This record gives sequence, C-alpha cells and structure tokens, in this order.
Amino acid sequence: MSLAAQAAHLLSRIRETRPLVHHLTNLVVMNDVANVTLAAGALPVMAHAPEEVEEIVSASSALVLNLGTLTLEKRDVMLLAGRTANGRGIPVALDPVGAGASRFRTESALTLLREVRITVVRGNPGEISHLAGMPGAVRGVKSLGVQTPPQDLAQVLAREHACVVAVTGPRDWISDGRRLLAVDNGHPLLQRITGSGCMATAVIGCFLAVGGDPLVATAAALAYFGYAAELAAREARGPGSFRVSLLDHLALLDASSLEAGARIVEVQGSR
Amino acid sequence: MSLAAQAAHLLSRIRETRPLVHHLTNLVVMNDVANVTLAAGALPVMAHAPEEVEEIVSASSALVLNLGTLTLEKRDVMLLAGRTANGRGIPVALDPVGAGASRFRTESALTLLREVRITVVRGNPGEISHLAGMPGAVRGVKSLGVQTPPQDLAQVLAREHACVVAVTGPRDWISDGRRLLAVDNGHPLLQRITGSGCMATAVIGCFLAVGGDPLVATAAALAYFGYAAELAAREARGPGSFRVSLLDHLALLDASSLEAGARIVEVQGSR
Amino acid sequence: MSLAAQAAHLLSRIRETRPLVHHLTNLVVMNDVANVTLAAGALPVMAHAPEEVEEIVSASSALVLNLGTLTLEKRDVMLLAGRTANGRGIPVALDPVGAGASRFRTESALTLLREVRITVVRGNPGEISHLAGMPGAVRGVKSLGVQTPPQDLAQVLAREHACVVAVTGPRDWISDGRRLLAVDNGHPLLQRITGSGCMATAVIGCFLAVGGDPLVATAAALAYFGYAAELAAREARGPGSFRVSLLDHLALLDASSLEAGARIVEVQGSR
Repeated sequence: MSLAAQAAHLLSRIRETRPLVHHLTNLVVMNDVANVTLAAGALPVMAHAPEEVEEIVSASSALVLNLGTLTLEKRDVMLLAGRTANGRGIPVALDPVGAGASRFRTESALTLLREVRITVVRGNPGEISHLAGMPGAVRGVKSLGVQTPPQDLAQVLAREHACVVAVTGPRDWISDGRRLLAVDNGHPLLQRITGSGCMATAVIGCFLAVGGDPLVATAAALAYFGYAAELAAREARGPGSFRVSLLDHLALLDASSLEAGARIVEVQGSR
Repeated sequence: MSLAAQAAHLLSRIRETRPLVHHLTNLVVMNDVANVTLAAGALPVMAHAPEEVEEIVSASSALVLNLGTLTLEKRDVMLLAGRTANGRGIPVALDPVGAGASRFRTESALTLLREVRITVVRGNPGEISHLAGMPGAVRGVKSLGVQTPPQDLAQVLAREHACVVAVTGPRDWISDGRRLLAVDNGHPLLQRITGSGCMATAVIGCFLAVGGDPLVATAAALAYFGYAAELAAREARGPGSFRVSLLDHLALLDASSLEAGARIVEVQGSR
Repeated sequence: MSLAAQAAHLLSRIRETRPLVHHLTNLVVMNDVANVTLAAGALPVMAHAPEEVEEIVSASSALVLNLGTLTLEKRDVMLLAGRTANGRGIPVALDPVGAGASRFRTESALTLLREVRITVVRGNPGEISHLAGMPGAVRGVKSLGVQTPPQDLAQVLAREHACVVAVTGPRDWISDGRRLLAVDNGHPLLQRITGSGCMATAVIGCFLAVGGDPLVATAAALAYFGYAAELAAREARGPGSFRVSLLDHLALLDASSLEAGARIVEVQGSR
C-alpha cells in the first residue's frame, strides 16, 4: 500500500472510531486546536487540573503536549499526564513551541523528552535545532539561525530520543532515526496565521490515536493538514478567509481525495 | 402570548436594555462566548480574579458558570461569584461541561448545585444523567451511555435542585420540575464546532438577564440559538464557514423573524 | 511629509523589518491579537511565565500590556516585563481594559502607570476618565458616564504621566500632552465584535516597534486599523463575516492604500 493510501486509511479510521484526543495546549490556540481536532474526525478534550488530568488521559487515545504560554505549573501537569500516558501505552505528541526563544522553554522541552517517552516531536527547524543541540545553535540561544539541514536535524533528534521527529517547513521531514520521509503538501499562507504549527501537531495526535506506525501516521497527518491548506488557499483572499476555509476543508477532505492529493515521499528506507 | 412570541419579546428586551452578562467560562470558548453575547445584544464581561469578582457580579444582570478547563482555584471563584449573585437576586446559569468525564468535574458541578442557588442548568444527556444520579450512570463514571430519556433527566434534576434544567440534543428539553417544554430548533453542524453547548448556555444567560420566567427564557434562548444555526447552516460549506455565519445570524436575527422561526412546544403544563 | 504619508511609511517598515512584539494580553482575545499582529506584518510572541518574561521582552521590539482578565499574578508579571522594557528602551503600550469597572482594574492600571514608563495608553472614554481622575468619574466607580470631552481626557492623562494617550471612539483622539491629533477612520461594526479595542492596542504595539514619534505611530496605527475596518465593513453581513474580512484587509492593506485612506488630522500643534 502506498504511503498516500496509508494516509487515506488512517483518516478513514479516525472518522470511523472518533478517538478522544487530550490536548494540553497553549492559551492562544486552544479554540483552533479543538476545532481542527473535530474537523479531522476526532473528539478533543482539554483538561489541565492536576485533580483530573490522569483520569482524562487514561480515557484518551492520544495525548498532545504543546509548550506555548508555558508555566511551571503547566509543565508539572504535562509531566504527570505524560507519565500516565506512558503507563497505559497511549501515544504522546510534543510541540516544543518556542524552544530556543528562552532557556525556560528549551529546558522544559528537554525535561519532557527525558522524563516522558514521547512518540512524536514536531517543530520548526529553529526549535528542533535547539533540542538536537546542534553546534552553534545551543550557544546562541536567541539565534534562530540554523545551519544544519532539517532532514539531519530530524534524524539526530529522533535517534537521541528514540522517537519520531518532524521538522516542518516548505518541505516537511519526518524521521524515526532510520527511515526518512518527506511531505510536500502545504501552503505559505500557513505562515500568516497564528497556531498553524500547533494545529499540525494536534492533527498528528489524531492520527496517532488510531494506531499503526507513528512515522507513517505523522507523515499522513502532515499531508492531510497541508493538502487541506492547499485547497483552502485557492479560495482565500487573506489570512482571515484562509482560516475559515482551512477548517472547512479539513472537515470536507475525505480519504479518497487525500489519497489523490497527499505527496509523501520515502527518501530513505529502513536498512 | 405564544411561547414563540414570548421568545421574540425577550430578544427585543435584550437589544433595548443591553444587559451586562458576567461569564466565568472556559479557556477554549472565551472568545466565542463573548462574541455570541454581543451578537445577542448583551454586553459580556469576563473577570475571574477573586479581587474583583464580587464587584463585577454585582454590576451584572446575569452570571454564567461554565466548568470547562476547570481548576480548584476557578471553582472557588465560581462559588464566590455564585453566592454574590444569590445575595443580589441575579440569575445564575450553570454549564456542567464534562460532568461524568472525571470525578473532579462531576463533584464540582454537584458542589455548585448544592452551595449556589442555580437558576438554570444546561447540559447534554450524559452530563445531566451524572448530575441526576440516574442508576447505571453514576457508577460507570466514564460511560456516557444514558438509558433514561432526556425529558425525564431534566425533570428529575430540576425537582432535586428546584431549578430549571435544559437537556440539549436533536430535541431540547426544558423543565422546571413541573412544566416541560421542548425546542425543535437546531442543526447537526452545531456538533461539528467546539463550544456550541457553551455558547447556548451563554445565550441562556443573556435571556435570563432580562427577567421573566426562567423556564420560558431558557426555551427562548435555545430556540433563538438553534434557529440562527439553521439559517447559518443553509450557507455553510463546513464548520469554518458555519461558525462565521452563525455569528452573523445571531446578530441579524430580529424579534419578528425569531417569532416566525421558533419551534417551542409545551409538552406538559403546570398542574 | 503628511501624517498619512508617515503612517504609510511606518507600515512599510513593519513589513520590511518584521519586529517581534511581546503581548501580555487577556485570555479572551489572545488568538485575535496574535493574528492581527501577523496581519500587520509583525511577529507576535506571548509568554507570561516569570521564568522567561524578561528574556522574551529583551528580544522584542515592543511590549503590549492588556489588563483584561487580570489577576494579581499577571499584574506582577506585567510589572516585571514593563521594568525590563524600560531598562532596555523598548516601547510599552498599555490597554487599561475595564478601568473603572472594578477597583482592582483601576488601581492596577494606575500602579502600572506609576511603576512603569508607559509609552502609549489606549482606552475608551470611560476607562481613560477613571485613570485621569476627572471629577465625578472616580467617585462613582461603576458609572461609565463621562462628562469631560475625550480630547481633554487624552491631554490631561498624557500630561500627568508624560506619555501618549489615545481615547478611541467614533473619532479617536491622540495627545502627548502638547500636540493633539484626531483619527476619523473606523466603523461601528468594531463595537459588535469582542476585542476590537485590544486589537487596536496590539496594532499600536506593532507601529511603536519600528520607532519614531509615538504620537504619530499611535495615530498611524489607529488609522491603519480603522481603515481596514472600513474596507471590511463593506463586505460584511454581520459580526462573523466582519471579523474574517477585517483580518484579510489588515493583511492586504498596503502602504500606498493606507496613505490614500488614512484620515489623520492635526488639531493642535506643538507650541
């Protein structure tokens, strides 16, 4: 089965099984993340009180941790949620928003990577370079300049933490440390709205929730999100109408259209 | 005066008097709730610091408590706000988001129902069944399966807490423990966007703010919200454009159109 | 160079330099504020943990403090952020949301004005009158009735705190205590959506971020925001579609169109 066909199959499964996806996400994008999760076909739940977080994680099929608008309290809740997910075999997606922009964010992301078994990390090249500790990046914490090619960043971080890493950009790179996939869906308008990266990670959570290989699930999620963005961009006049159309197309896009539109390439296979 | 005419009258009063409605609501839907309140014709205020909550409640014409993204701190603020409202005769609407999904949510909702004189509770059948303590529901806290018909749930909970209870779904049921109304407005697309229940409760707050019988006000609010959703759905391609149109139609819908479109039935009168 | 030409020049600079603007804003409008900042051409960052706020402020070109949904904790973080900005010569915009609606809000706004060197304050006539301590206003804290003309409020508060004050309404008044500008752009639909004032202040932050005279930058920002609202209103059916079009037009509006559409008047020059 081609990678595009696998993506289509996973989308069908989300819509058939309507998995519960627990988001511990940032305050800026909560509403968008909930709506994108619904559009993908899953059911969002958002609950961050320490009194209930274990119970909610345990009832969920995936957990998404997003470090935007982080606080110490929220980080502790994420550690609790992550460990609970690990204990029950529930996949965990991590979005290290702002890693590299402050020591607190970088260290919090690294703490989560150490203390929780993360299934997938998704970030932009700047964020991932800081987590991968690539020369020249960790020193100048403020600098988001990246020398290392994104595919190498993905592979290095994936090997270090034995997880899948997605570095998103004009071309998305996804690696589990051995194999390397690339996704060529997407649109520049995604850079003109807030939270598009967070939404992509939320969608990865939905795809992880229906099981299978996390490498393929991550590429499938990014192809689905990126292809919906392409369709939305055709009708958009600017970022306002693009956001509206993106939500429409995420909901309207069905498995067969996704199979036709997904552009997922296997760059390096398993050795 | 027919129930539809009463609904129209209440909508006119909101637009004439522009009451202040204080929302202690969840982080996911704050923006939508504020915009829906404005569209209905009321003025939203959101303030949750213990330092100011009593002062803000006292200046408001209705208080809306929503348990989504609840924390212990927020629950304490809600108790403070609720008691302040009670002391001044200000109506209180409660949305027990997630009751049944965690012990913390269920118990918090029950605490509020015990400690605050709630005017109206609005929830889905799963949430209300857990608050009503219906056999089979409270035990399996995680199960949202409900055996009891929604109209019975509404009546049981309404009698227990001497308040109005609305159980919303394809048909909305509203009871004050004696009388039973049904509202047949609404559209399935409401299930495809986040926070539609929270928005409905916000609108109930707006209708309570202009006084009158809370049973009728609640049915009126649900008819108004549901009818706007019907009109919006006619133009929507998906959840993104539906949200946009919903806000437009909530603002555009006037009293005479509401009187024509409201479908409120008295199923059981006062005995 | 005319004031409109100066406004156009500042907009071009935002788009060329893409300055980072740090928002400590309220929970209701976070998403809108981030999207409006992107549409203007700047890069939003939102971070309120005491562990990182100084680092993030230091990397930013402007700081925006918004008192909606304020808490004591958030106020302390704002003081920390404000002092950091002052130490580095980074301009600070303050939106005293709800000043006058509670003692906590009024006093918090005054504390910030005393402890932080604020570059620009933007509020509605009610809010500014409470900060200006105009007779009859501070006594009846709840009353938002204002006797003093808005242009006088702007001048009084500007002189008292040696900053720029913008009082927005059908006509916006901007004063630095000596000069007085008026902006006649805008549209009544702005009153029908939540957070339009907060968005305006966010845009002021973007214009301050590219330097120059804060009086002119503030008027330029309000003309840009108001003119985009005029263009959006032409296509809007209601508040839902207006919000979408507003974001589109904020992004689409270029410097030469702004120069043609900006209506900025110098009412009183420097003496």
